[in-house]
Amino acid sequence: MTYNDLTAHYRKLNRLVHVSRIVGWDEAVMMPRGGGESRAEAMATLEGMIHEQSSDPQIAGWLEAAESEPLDELGRANLREIRRAYVRATALPGALVEAQSRAQLRCEQAWRTQRKENDWAGHLPLLAEVIRLKREEAQILSERLGLSPYDALMDAYEPGMRGAALDPLFADLGSWLPERVAEIVGRQASVSVVPMGGPFPVELQRAAALELMTALGFDFEHGRLDTSHHPFCGGVPTDVRVTTRYNEQDFTESLMGVLHETGHAKYEQGLPRELDGLPVGQARSMGVHESQSLFQEMQICRGLPFLTFAAPILRRVFVQAATQAPQAFEPENLYRLYTRVRPGYIRVDADEVTYPLHVILRYRLERGLMEGRLSPEDIPAHWDEAMKQALGLSTRENYRDGCMQDVHWPSGAFGYFPSYTLGALIAAQLFEAAAQALPDLERDIARGELRPLNEFLRTRVWSQASRLETPRLVELATGQGLGTAAFKRHIARRYLS
Amino acid sequence: MTYNDLTAHYRKLNRLVHVSRIVGWDEAVMMPRGGGESRAEAMATLEGMIHEQSSDPQIAGWLEAAESEPLDELGRANLREIRRAYVRATALPGALVEAQSRAQLRCEQAWRTQRKENDWAGHLPLLAEVIRLKREEAQILSERLGLSPYDALMDAYEPGMRGAALDPLFADLGSWLPERVAEIVGRQASVSVVPMGGPFPVELQRAAALELMTALGFDFEHGRLDTSHHPFCGGVPTDVRVTTRYNEQDFTESLMGVLHETGHAKYEQGLPRELDGLPVGQARSMGVHESQSLFQEMQICRGLPFLTFAAPILRRVFVQAATQAPQAFEPENLYRLYTRVRPGYIRVDADEVTYPLHVILRYRLERGLMEGRLSPEDIPAHWDEAMKQALGLSTRENYRDGCMQDVHWPSGAFGYFPSYTLGALIAAQLFEAAAQALPDLERDIARGELRPLNEFLRTRVWSQASRLETPRLVELATGQGLGTAAFKRHIARRYLS
Repeated sequence: MTYNDLTAHYRKLNRLVHVSRIVGWDEAVMMPRGGGESRAEAMATLEGMIHEQSSDPQIAGWLEAAESEPLDELGRANLREIRRAYVRATALPGALVEAQSRAQLRCEQAWRTQRKENDWAGHLPLLAEVIRLKREEAQILSERLGLSPYDALMDAYEPGMRGAALDPLFADLGSWLPERVAEIVGRQASVSVVPMGGPFPVELQRAAALELMTALGFDFEHGRLDTSHHPFCGGVPTDVRVTTRYNEQDFTESLMGVLHETGHAKYEQGLPRELDGLPVGQARSMGVHESQSLFQEMQICRGLPFLTFAAPILRRVFVQAATQAPQAFEPENLYRLYTRVRPGYIRVDADEVTYPLHVILRYRLERGLMEGRLSPEDIPAHWDEAMKQALGLSTRENYRDGCMQDVHWPSGAFGYFPSYTLGALIAAQLFEAAAQALPDLERDIARGELRPLNEFLRTRVWSQASRLETPRLVELATGQGLGTAAFKRHIARRYLS
Repeated sequence: MTYNDLTAHYRKLNRLVHVSRIVGWDEAVMMPRGGGESRAEAMATLEGMIHEQSSDPQIAGWLEAAESEPLDELGRANLREIRRAYVRATALPGALVEAQSRAQLRCEQAWRTQRKENDWAGHLPLLAEVIRLKREEAQILSERLGLSPYDALMDAYEPGMRGAALDPLFADLGSWLPERVAEIVGRQASVSVVPMGGPFPVELQRAAALELMTALGFDFEHGRLDTSHHPFCGGVPTDVRVTTRYNEQDFTESLMGVLHETGHAKYEQGLPRELDGLPVGQARSMGVHESQSLFQEMQICRGLPFLTFAAPILRRVFVQAATQAPQAFEPENLYRLYTRVRPGYIRVDADEVTYPLHVILRYRLERGLMEGRLSPEDIPAHWDEAMKQALGLSTRENYRDGCMQDVHWPSGAFGYFPSYTLGALIAAQLFEAAAQALPDLERDIARGELRPLNEFLRTRVWSQASRLETPRLVELATGQGLGTAAFKRHIARRYLS
């Protein structure tokens, strides 16, 4: 069968991707500075070979032949994913891809300095060039895929998701959340949190992280925890590499970051081994990936049951700090600390209540940019206006904490932002489904028994890999179509009851 | 010019080798156990691509055309190295290479257990198969290269080196050393070494190693020190990865291991950057590489001047142990410890005086095996006989500490052993040349001033890369043809004066 040629091709291609992932991790975590230049050349050569094999013209013929072969559902789903990847790998002219690489590299490198210097004037022409080329890409993909330009971009991260489906969800959240934020901030004003005194030595923070990762079900036979400047979850499903960075004055942020990445990692570790290397065997989408990290972080680890389990571990590891401020390490206090809501400028520091407002703002802006309704020079004014409406914060002339805060646009990632909030919505639905399926859920979590919950996730999400498209996966996994109701119930339950 | 096509091809090929080296390091140092299977597949795919490009039939035509182009001396040397590599990459039938891979993998894997169990009977058939295939390889290469079968194998590690040139050197050492060993052991019997009490925490050992590596001139902008089960020097010239393992009861062995690997590392870091990726830009040979590590370890770091410099650093780092046994940390005591001569069974634990006797034994055996004068089943008896003659130790029925101690033969590395002793001979000659060129050498070393010596090595060895063949390189770098005289003078000076 031609189908077998296709799968053999993709399994081989995936082995090069494996190598690329490990070397990419090494670059972020291990490589000394002086190794950068020749490493960049080595990686470019490897990526070139990966691109060559992803866009091998033979694939077109194989696909066509295989699509008329008798295949089971899994095979069909695999073909669907192969076609999706192949169309994307071959749709754009090489000259455009090269121009984009150059423009994005230049813009992202400049951004590192320009953001620090609040230099929007210097940044604008570089960003405008990235946007111009991205619009070109969106136009080409739009025609090729029969989607609107923005949808054609978003489809890369969230296959099947459309602006038309997002709009009502985001409209609902955008109008519901701001009042809730005000109400929650009001309630929390009278609740005091006992501070924890440091310092917290890195080695102890690492020990605490390893213990809680193990309790959550991270498999250290197939993964590691290391340190990098920007925390991420990398590697391959058989060898998942989680990273974090430590602040000796405060362990709480790094620790929760690790638990968030552990959610990503467990998804990768839980993908079906027998589909390894096939497009259908990969994680479904960015939104589904984020649903796993946010499920772990927001639904589980910031909740009182998990913090009840974690508190004695933290007390034992940070014995000195815990002896000095025993009340600080009480579950209730940890819970108050980990559920504090505070409107702020910065998306990555945002709590789960304000976070969607940051995303909606970006979604509306980037969609306008891609549909030609907005120009790059309009960004700051729109940003300022939207932040004032959503969170009552002005970013006028404060580009650094406004429209220059994210790496996404400088690096050409348009259409990505919605995934964060899709993940939050899916995570809330998953938690409701889990609570229904597992009557002892909260009690289990409070005693560190995560296995039933992990089996639930394995069955409903991880083992599904990319067999289904996102909407169908969400429906089968959570028993509901994608919506805002579960998320709103979660916010109300946690912050307003 | 066709020459440019060739260099472009090899530079690109080298980028894949870069990736392979980093992933290989990761496998030894970082990879969790469960990642092994899919990593092995990924590496096999990458190695397959490297082999494909190394044996690309286009190279033959390019080589022929380039050899009639007007090239400078460097270009000629590069062509010579390319031809050497290409002939070796294409000489063997694919079926033989595959059979060897399988037989060697099986033999090496079994050896790990069989050695522990002293199971020569179980090991013999597996090793015999490796040897049978290796003889086949030697025969084919012999015809292709116009060399004797053993020389054709050794030429892979030590280009230009021949058994006929080695024989007189090894005959000389083989007859001179045993009496010296006896004499030195006799002298040292009355010299006592003050023991150092531990434990020596890993973090302190690492700190001492980093400080001494820095003093020796290891460039941490282009390299790292990490931990692995078997110490090695890996990575690429712009990013050299040294590894070690620690024993908390005794820091001395690990520390000296790091300094040995630092010699390898400085050679790699010192290769000319502008030749990066070209065959002529690589380290000359295994013997020359070993000359750099042994120069560092034996000529410099085990000498009294360097230990005079290192002693206060070790006292400061291991302050607790040094306070308990201050005499142990005196330079003279460290020197006695680091120059102790003791005949033993195990090559890797041997001191520099007995080491060549281990090598000569193996050389004679493996040459006999490849020339068909010996059969695999003859190995233990010959080993026992040779060890008794050389060091007065019987290995009868003690295979574990006899002919089963090395990984080389099970893994198919025949012709490699001589490099260790060639390295020791070259290192001794280099030291004499350095002492002549740098009148303040010993005083400089004693105060940790290694720069003049490193510049000497850079000029004479590192910057030469593979421009010259080994005999000519040795002659130009040391002012003498390769011989035993300098090594014998070194032994006499250090141990018998």
